[in-house]
Amino acid sequence: MSAADIGFILICAAMVMLMTPGLALFYGGMIRVKSALNMLMMVFIAMGISSVLWVLYGFSIAFGDSFNGEGGGIIGNFDFLGFKDILGLEGSADILTFAVFQLMFAVLTPALIAGALAERVKFSAWAVFVTLWVTLVYFPVAHWVWGDGGWIANLELDGREVIDFAGGTAVHINAGIAALAVVLVIGKRVGFKKDSSMRPHNLPMVLLGASLLWFGWFGFNAGSEGAANGTAALMALNTMVATGTAVLGWLIYERIRYGAYTTLGAASGAIGGLVAITPSGANVNPMGAMAIGLAAGAVCAWAVGLKFKLGFDDSLDVVGVHLVGGIIGTLMVGFLAIDGAAGIAQFALQAGAAAAVLAYSFVVSLLLALLLKHTMGFRADEEAEAGGLDQAYHAESGYDFSQVGGGTGHGSAAPAAAPAPAPADDKKVDA
Amino acid sequence: MSAADIGFILICAAMVMLMTPGLALFYGGMIRVKSALNMLMMVFIAMGISSVLWVLYGFSIAFGDSFNGEGGGIIGNFDFLGFKDILGLEGSADILTFAVFQLMFAVLTPALIAGALAERVKFSAWAVFVTLWVTLVYFPVAHWVWGDGGWIANLELDGREVIDFAGGTAVHINAGIAALAVVLVIGKRVGFKKDSSMRPHNLPMVLLGASLLWFGWFGFNAGSEGAANGTAALMALNTMVATGTAVLGWLIYERIRYGAYTTLGAASGAIGGLVAITPSGANVNPMGAMAIGLAAGAVCAWAVGLKFKLGFDDSLDVVGVHLVGGIIGTLMVGFLAIDGAAGIAQFALQAGAAAAVLAYSFVVSLLLALLLKHTMGFRADEEAEAGGLDQAYHAESGYDFSQVGGGTGHGSAAPAAAPAPAPADDKKVDA
Amino acid sequence: MSAADIGFILICAAMVMLMTPGLALFYGGMIRVKSALNMLMMVFIAMGISSVLWVLYGFSIAFGDSFNGEGGGIIGNFDFLGFKDILGLEGSADILTFAVFQLMFAVLTPALIAGALAERVKFSAWAVFVTLWVTLVYFPVAHWVWGDGGWIANLELDGREVIDFAGGTAVHINAGIAALAVVLVIGKRVGFKKDSSMRPHNLPMVLLGASLLWFGWFGFNAGSEGAANGTAALMALNTMVATGTAVLGWLIYERIRYGAYTTLGAASGAIGGLVAITPSGANVNPMGAMAIGLAAGAVCAWAVGLKFKLGFDDSLDVVGVHLVGGIIGTLMVGFLAIDGAAGIAQFALQAGAAAAVLAYSFVVSLLLALLLKHTMGFRADEEAEAGGLDQAYHAESGYDFSQVGGGTGHGSAAPAAAPAPAPADDKKVDA
Repeated sequence: MSAADIGFILICAAMVMLMTPGLALFYGGMIRVKSALNMLMMVFIAMGISSVLWVLYGFSIAFGDSFNGEGGGIIGNFDFLGFKDILGLEGSADILTFAVFQLMFAVLTPALIAGALAERVKFSAWAVFVTLWVTLVYFPVAHWVWGDGGWIANLELDGREVIDFAGGTAVHINAGIAALAVVLVIGKRVGFKKDSSMRPHNLPMVLLGASLLWFGWFGFNAGSEGAANGTAALMALNTMVATGTAVLGWLIYERIRYGAYTTLGAASGAIGGLVAITPSGANVNPMGAMAIGLAAGAVCAWAVGLKFKLGFDDSLDVVGVHLVGGIIGTLMVGFLAIDGAAGIAQFALQAGAAAAVLAYSFVVSLLLALLLKHTMGFRADEEAEAGGLDQAYHAESGYDFSQVGGGTGHGSAAPAAAPAPAPADDKKVDA
Repeated sequence: MSAADIGFILICAAMVMLMTPGLALFYGGMIRVKSALNMLMMVFIAMGISSVLWVLYGFSIAFGDSFNGEGGGIIGNFDFLGFKDILGLEGSADILTFAVFQLMFAVLTPALIAGALAERVKFSAWAVFVTLWVTLVYFPVAHWVWGDGGWIANLELDGREVIDFAGGTAVHINAGIAALAVVLVIGKRVGFKKDSSMRPHNLPMVLLGASLLWFGWFGFNAGSEGAANGTAALMALNTMVATGTAVLGWLIYERIRYGAYTTLGAASGAIGGLVAITPSGANVNPMGAMAIGLAAGAVCAWAVGLKFKLGFDDSLDVVGVHLVGGIIGTLMVGFLAIDGAAGIAQFALQAGAAAAVLAYSFVVSLLLALLLKHTMGFRADEEAEAGGLDQAYHAESGYDFSQVGGGTGHGSAAPAAAPAPAPADDKKVDA
Repeated sequence: MSAADIGFILICAAMVMLMTPGLALFYGGMIRVKSALNMLMMVFIAMGISSVLWVLYGFSIAFGDSFNGEGGGIIGNFDFLGFKDILGLEGSADILTFAVFQLMFAVLTPALIAGALAERVKFSAWAVFVTLWVTLVYFPVAHWVWGDGGWIANLELDGREVIDFAGGTAVHINAGIAALAVVLVIGKRVGFKKDSSMRPHNLPMVLLGASLLWFGWFGFNAGSEGAANGTAALMALNTMVATGTAVLGWLIYERIRYGAYTTLGAASGAIGGLVAITPSGANVNPMGAMAIGLAAGAVCAWAVGLKFKLGFDDSLDVVGVHLVGGIIGTLMVGFLAIDGAAGIAQFALQAGAAAAVLAYSFVVSLLLALLLKHTMGFRADEEAEAGGLDQAYHAESGYDFSQVGGGTGHGSAAPAAAPAPAPADDKKVDA
């Protein structure tokens, strides 16, 4: 890699890093205030866990040479364990640059799942789930799709290969279907479909989170080219076009169906568009990007209603946006690809890759959720759920707007800005 | 363009993209809570509309070869309609890079106008206005100022040319005077000058928005060089210096005049400084940047009071900051330019360009506002304005801090995190 | 510098700029609501003051050739005063690029101190303190550590040199010990250790601030290489790894000690990890970065409790996080450095540099605080402290969620979105 490419990818990596806090705010704002911090923390903890695992073995599993190479690889070998000797390797600058960029994907993908599980899981169980899930699902699937020897990367049909530029399968379908699997195991929130109080507690925060995601996504998408060139530029332009169009698509759907243009819809539409252009944006022209964005906006707007009809509590619409949006982008590029690729062979490849990731991720995620349910327990107890997870697991409240003046001399021992003491009821804090 | 320049400009484009959400937060925090989401949405919808139009014909009008070329161009030709065949063109990487960077300007500029119209216009009318305004005003004016054959770009006097590095005329004077024109048509908010409750509902959000604008503005200003070089570096340094100085300028004015240093003043001062250095920062030294920043801070702080004296309700000071700041920067560079340019000829060129954009934008914006007023109606009805536009057009409220615990079993049918149902009073939702 | 390096560093500079608003939000969210704007403003004003001083003489003192050169330099000469003739110099592109990048450090460092002084100092006195402190402490110390002729930069022992890649001594130890010195002079807040109401008013804002800091820190750390290369890539990777690990370290400490994983802890842990990897990240491998992050997270989590035991009111833990984290990173690299450096000589150099900066900064900061205390007064009066500094110095309140509808015709003269009038009690506004 040239200095120009290294510089470009390092900045892109930092932008992708910002997507995870963006996701935390996007999700956190949608939650009732009593569990909003818990949602922020579910996302944030993934930044810690995936970073550590990435160094220990994640990068090696995802991007080491395939054990069973020759294009049929399932996981990478262990040459990069602990990044040992990385600095002595030839091309270490390139490897380090690629490693930090891809680490951000490994952080974001499990965090996406959190939105479906909102307001009702044990924090400690979630941390264990993230650890197991990235190990058994994300790292291998990343190897399949992006590893040099990965089996999906090496699929061929009529001389065509699977197109997944920046992660329609490995990131969005993967996280979306995993979210569905876990939700089926842990069940619905108390009050689901019945409780009118389940409204976003802070919509400006939702929009801020969506905006940081949008910003970082330019790094995610354009940076996936691995170089600063015309393909990266096309991807950047298409990312903007598809996302803007998806916002309009979602809002138009809402206006027709519900009579109002919602802020939540605008934010969700943006994410739907970003998801759909992720696998496809380097292989379509701007008119194609617009078509993908419009489809993503309108179809996702419809799809988020399915949970009410089918009765699964995908709290913040991870399935409706990431799974559905990921499928839209992955399949549509089969017909819209510009470089002579569009056609039935390409479509078949796309569908096959999507189905493989979907099936594997669903099964393993379901098993992991069942394992947790029947060992340490995945679901928060009723008291914690009713009272809010913020007090139960974090001993905090999101906001305190009451201290407008005075207020001294209460004689309480609780210091400010120090770790809050454990709540009185110890039973609640077995997160 | 080299890989280094492509990478630099693509990152700058993403940074400029973030300015529009930054603007939404900056404006949204200043609004009363009952219409804050509407302000966010007015800004956000521009991201959708301009992105679509840019692909369809915007880029072609702004940056196609002039129809009536030879330096007197009014609009570009239609060679880029729908970005057709863009990928087959020679230099397509450069064109795509430039196109995504400039798209962000086309998104931001109409969004700037929204601040003046706060809390009182129909959402649908605003969307139509944005569509017409970018088509008839922004795209042509961008061609004048930045198109190869644009007539302002080709003005000459005593061997000098107009200096508008990053958009003092095309962006800030343009949006600022358009805001004034529309405000004159739609009239004042109920309670203007009388209502003490018209205070910002969330000042930390205002400062956050200003900060994201400040950050993105480095991309806006330095990226306008189109390359990573010494001019871009000078522009970046001057952007910081002018903005920091403008913050001080505004705060000092406030302290003398009103006795307090306000957060709103610090945020507004930063924007004033950023606006003023936009046209001028590549052509002055850091001491000149400081002079421009100080003038922008103090003069804009004074100018935002004019609306009360003259009686026009420029709600969030688009005129006082963007129009006035844009004029300050555009004119001062006439005297402060370093490359042998400073002088009466340069000043005359600057004043002429400013006046031309100002006159054209004012007249067309006024006509568009009148057209909307007398067809679909531009102004929200009284009930919507009094009750807040958030409920009227978006069927949402910005915040809900009340769900601190329990709250289940209300039996309401309204699902959480789904598009909110239309409010009972259908009449309100004719946005 | 090549175009690739210039582009990289300019973007990094913009990212570092965003750290200061990030710090404002991080600190501001931890404050009681009645003084939150004041905290935002204490941080924000540093952006103005340092920018102006940087142009006038700061850059010259920090990065001019040493007066007493030959490797024993104390301050730089005055060749760059006012950046005069900068554009005519050979290599001006490089100088300008470096100057804007380093300016962001000069902005951030004094702002860090503000957190320790929360809720109890006069705004005008703080502004004077920042002016004097950057002049007498930051600019010289930056020269010592990073100036070509700076005496710390030229220390040698057994052929080794001090390692402070991105500012463990010059930024974090420097600001941390200065914070302690000032706190000893100004004393504790009323209610310190006794008042249970001293809780963060907005924890999502704290996490947002920490996230913007984390994002910008990639620019801070990787950009300190001055080029886009393998060292920058290693630094970026280690920055992520150390920070993620530090989050886990802090949370584990909290869970064991207090029984809960707090949001404030996650945010603080991130900052602790970022601080510790700042001096060290270019000289350790990822396993070393993990060790540094884990130590920083756990030790800082313990260190923030010291203020309660020792009785100094470091309100937002500047000492516990920046001083302690800075020392951890500066010392640990003595043993963990990879390029044959680790050992007793390196450790001695690290300890010596840390001690020198610590001693100088403590003494001068203490004298400055005493000077202010005995001239204009440093501490806010009791009335201002009890009622909140927002009204006292800024004539504003952070939030107004009450204007949910109607509210017209009060007949008040106070205009919206204009600088708020001075509060009735003039005495309060002698900031």
